[in-house]
This record gives sequence, C-alpha cells and structure tokens, in this order.
Amino acid sequence: MPESPVIGVVGATGAVGRVTLRLLAERGYEQVRVFASGRSAGRELDGGLVVEAATPEALAAGGLDVALFSVGTSASRELVPHAVRGGATVVDKSAAYRLEPGIPLVVPEVNGARALEHDGIVANPNCCTIPLTCVLKPLHDAAGLASVRLSTYQSVSGAGAQRMEQLRNEPQDEHDLAMDWSWEGDETDEEAKIRAEAQKILELPELPVSATTVRVPVLVGHAESVWVELEDELTPDQATELLAAAPSVRVVDVPTPGAAAQTDEVLVGRVRVDRASRNGLVLFLACDNLVKGAALNAIQIAELLLSGDAGKGARTDDLLAAQRDGVG
Amino acid sequence: MPESPVIGVVGATGAVGRVTLRLLAERGYEQVRVFASGRSAGRELDGGLVVEAATPEALAAGGLDVALFSVGTSASRELVPHAVRGGATVVDKSAAYRLEPGIPLVVPEVNGARALEHDGIVANPNCCTIPLTCVLKPLHDAAGLASVRLSTYQSVSGAGAQRMEQLRNEPQDEHDLAMDWSWEGDETDEEAKIRAEAQKILELPELPVSATTVRVPVLVGHAESVWVELEDELTPDQATELLAAAPSVRVVDVPTPGAAAQTDEVLVGRVRVDRASRNGLVLFLACDNLVKGAALNAIQIAELLLSGDAGKGARTDDLLAAQRDGVG
Repeated sequence: MPESPVIGVVGATGAVGRVTLRLLAERGYEQVRVFASGRSAGRELDGGLVVEAATPEALAAGGLDVALFSVGTSASRELVPHAVRGGATVVDKSAAYRLEPGIPLVVPEVNGARALEHDGIVANPNCCTIPLTCVLKPLHDAAGLASVRLSTYQSVSGAGAQRMEQLRNEPQDEHDLAMDWSWEGDETDEEAKIRAEAQKILELPELPVSATTVRVPVLVGHAESVWVELEDELTPDQATELLAAAPSVRVVDVPTPGAAAQTDEVLVGRVRVDRASRNGLVLFLACDNLVKGAALNAIQIAELLLSGDAGKGARTDDLLAAQRDGVG
Repeated sequence: MPESPVIGVVGATGAVGRVTLRLLAERGYEQVRVFASGRSAGRELDGGLVVEAATPEALAAGGLDVALFSVGTSASRELVPHAVRGGATVVDKSAAYRLEPGIPLVVPEVNGARALEHDGIVANPNCCTIPLTCVLKPLHDAAGLASVRLSTYQSVSGAGAQRMEQLRNEPQDEHDLAMDWSWEGDETDEEAKIRAEAQKILELPELPVSATTVRVPVLVGHAESVWVELEDELTPDQATELLAAAPSVRVVDVPTPGAAAQTDEVLVGRVRVDRASRNGLVLFLACDNLVKGAALNAIQIAELLLSGDAGKGARTDDLLAAQRDGVG
C-alpha cells in the first residue's frame, strides 16, 4: 500500500461528502480527489479542491487507491463497479451492496477484520446500525443477545442537505415527526435495514430485531431508545462498565443528538433494568449520523484497508491500534 | 345535579387552562368561573371572563359544582382541599392525588365508572398515560396484557407555555432532544408515573411497564412508540379492528403529533408483529397532549360526574352515551 494514498471522495458536495472532506483534512490526508455530478464539475470547494465529474470513464481511469462513495443507492450501483475496475477499493455508504453475500459490511470496532475479506467493495452500514452495533457488540460478547427492540429519533440531515434547508425555513408550528422512508410491507425500509444489517454485522442471522424509525425536527444527530434481552444476566452496572471500555463508545448521563454532534463517539447512557423481561436492559444512545454514522466509519474502514497488509488476520483491536498509529 | 352547572377553571391562564376554556365554550357551558394566581386577578380573558384570585378563601366560599384544576402539583396540594370544602367536586390534572389510594384516577373510555366512587376528588392522569391506556384497554380485554414497553416523543407544550415560547425563539441549530424531568433513581419521574398510573387505571398492579420518556422539539402533540406482549395471540389485523372500534381512538397510517393536534382523538397505527416476542405487537400512537391528554379528559370526567346520578353503576359505554347526549 502506498505511503501517501490517493483517496477519491465521490458525492463530495453532499452532506456526508462535506463531512468526509473535513475529516480527511483533519487526519492529514494530502492526496484527495473529489467527484460529484456533472452539474458541480469544475466547481472549487473550500480548501481549493476542484470537483471532477463522477462519470463511469473518470472513475474507471484509475489513479485512486480508495474511493469513498456517498451517493444514492442507484448511483452507487451504476458507478461503483467502474471505480473497482479502475483499481480502487471502494467503501460504499449507500444501501446498494450492504446485504450482498460476499461483500463485507463493516463497523471497524465490531467486525473490522471482515473488511480484509473484500473483493473490491466494502459496504458501510446505515447511520442507525453503526452506533447500535457499537453498543450491542460488548453486551453480546458478555451475555449473549436474545432480542433487540428500538425506537429511533433521527435528524433530518439523514434525509439530505435539502431537507435541512427546508426545516430551517419552515415555521416552528409546522415542525412534526415523520416516517419519511419507503415502505417494505408493514415496515419502513429503514426498519428492515436496521434488522438485516445488525444481523449481518453481528453474525447473528436469527437475532430478532424490532425497530420503529421516526424522523424528528432536529438538524444533526440520531438517537435510539433501545431494549435488549440477554441470554445471561448482566446488571446495569456491569453493562455500563463494558460500554465504558468499548472502543468509540462514551458513557454519559443523558445522550442527545446535540451532545453527540461533531463528535467521533457513540454516546450511551440511562442503562437500567428492563422491568418487562427476565434478563433485559434498557438504554439510550446518540451519535452524529454524518460523522460516526457515515463519513468517519467509512474512513475508518479505508484505514483498515490501507493498513491491511500488516494487519491481515489480526484481531480488530490490533487493526484499530495500527490504524491509530499509522494514519496519513 | 344542576341543569346548568357552575364550572370553575383553576389555572385558567396556563396552556391547559386555555384549552379547557375553549372546549367548555364549544360544549355550550354557560356558567364558567376562572381562577389564577393573584398576578392575573382582575384580568379579562378572551370571551370576557374576569380572572379571580385562586385563594383558599375564594375556593372555599362555594358556588362551584365542579372545579377543573390545572395548576402544578404543589399548588393542587394546597388549594384542592379548599375547593372540596366549598362543595365542589374537583377534577385535578396535577400529579398530587393520582396515586392516592381511594382517589379515582380516570380515563372515561377505560375506567369511567370509577369516577363515581369519588370522595370529592377525581384525578386526571398524565398526558402520556391517557392515550396509552385508551389503546391498551381494548387489547387487554381481548388478549390479556403481559408487558408494555414504550418510548415517548413529547412536545414542549407538556412543559408549559414558557417552554413553547423558548422553542419558538431558539435557533433551529440548537433544537435538541431532552429528558427534562425530575429523576427518581434511574428513571425520570415521567417514566415512573406512566407505569404506576397505567397499572392503577387498568387495575393491573403487577403489569410490567418499561418507559423511556423523551422531549422532542415539537410545539404540540405527544407520540409513543409501543411494544405490547399479550397472553393470547392477536394478529395485527384483529388488533387494528379492536382499536378502530374503541371509543376516542382513530386508526391512521402514520400517527404524528401534527395530525393529532387540536383533535379529540388518540391516533394509532403501524400495528404489526413484534418479531422479538411470541405474542407481541408493535404500534405507534399520537395525541394532542393539551386536549385528550389533559383538558378534554378532565372535562369528560366532569361530565361523567354531572350525569352520575343517572349513570351510577352503569357500564362506561352507557355513561359515555349519556354524556354525549346530555351535555350543557
């Protein structure tokens, strides 16, 4: 792997793309190329990068070590194969490849080693699945997950920059909750994604996951109200201790989207006994959906891949340590 | 009971008091007296009513058939006994008397007959408990409740008119979730109230209820994401049919606070199988916390009391029918 890799950011002008560029700059990446739709081509972004048109030809022309895609699912389906053909390893943030057999779906803190099994594409999970699995993993390792129920509080930035603008301009009296996703039978596709992706990442294909997803009139940050049933008993104190020790997780009294905004961590708190089950816990979590919920997680996957030759086959913790020491 | 009863509204200038006055006018009540703190005494409200000071002496002086209290818990503790001494039957919307043994805690559609067992005071439940029990009751009657889990989306009007003003003036970027209640151990007092009140109203003192309460930046209307486990199987279609037939409940595709605002009903929808339990259902509900969640429920209790001589001992449905026919 090159000492100074070339990173392509495809969908650079969107909400997640912009956060991706900020994080890459903060982490010291010097060779970054930015791609977006033909409309934006030629535009100079803050920091001086000039947007290239994300055409199949441009992406297939090579020159990228890693390509971070944050475009819609249909655009990913169309463009990702060209970037792979051009020699890039793609980290795709859309839903296009997440559930495809053989394509790793990765949260570095949870199943980072899977990233190294890729065949050109690694999928980045849904913005609710990432913080959820960061919190579920240590609980599962200690006591075995039997079921998960969750109710989400998702900010409008998850629906794109345009919806953020709309919320800013709408009178306060009209702010309401919404379930503005596509529907798959009696569920939103978001609810179906959270279940299927959590099952794949945790490698628990039969895990019952029951989710209700709700959009709230907050600009940035998602929260989740979660009930877990466990195989073995775990006291709230034991669970809190495990969570405090988990990578990228921070225990706080009351996690909120506002407190999580612009931070790299998953905030979790209010861990207590679920009075409605035998070995059950209730907890609340919050996370910046644009940072750890999207851009940061994808960059962390890229860093696992870039340090992959050294780390292949190693435990996730070692990979993460290598990643922390060897960035840029 | 008098043909044209005198209704006292104590706390008439607050968010719930104002809705109470509007509903009383709509329902044709002609003899209404309004009380508030000394600060507001002498003020003329829309509609021409002049505010009287809510002093112990004024309330004990008599002349009220029913007094609807929407003041804080400590003000209710201080003032309610004086109104009772003055001969009024009090419907109290604070938490002061809700869990007191011997004092009925009433949702007319759920346990209306209990109102007639009062000894001067009937308590009106918490704004989340009212819509929740309206929805749980028909499910319990059909299949037996085994447990309830819920996560709330509560508007700021539940925290008073001042908080509504604050939200209107706050920049959109600062809008966040909150858990702005007092704490009782590891729970908010709101979570503890919902459990204890639902157990009392449904007369299921051992029912496990696990709630997480969350304030969302919406002005009016509360929503609840609910999981119920039942003793017997009930399909989503059967449950939806029972809910559609339940008094004050309306089945809709996606219940939201905005859709519920200013309506008298509890909106419920998204009834589906809980994949995490054997006989479990998931559903979502919304309700105007100032109307059915507070003012309207209290007026409905008052109307049960006013028609009580005829209805004593009758079934709730009959009481409600009597109430619908005999208002004003």
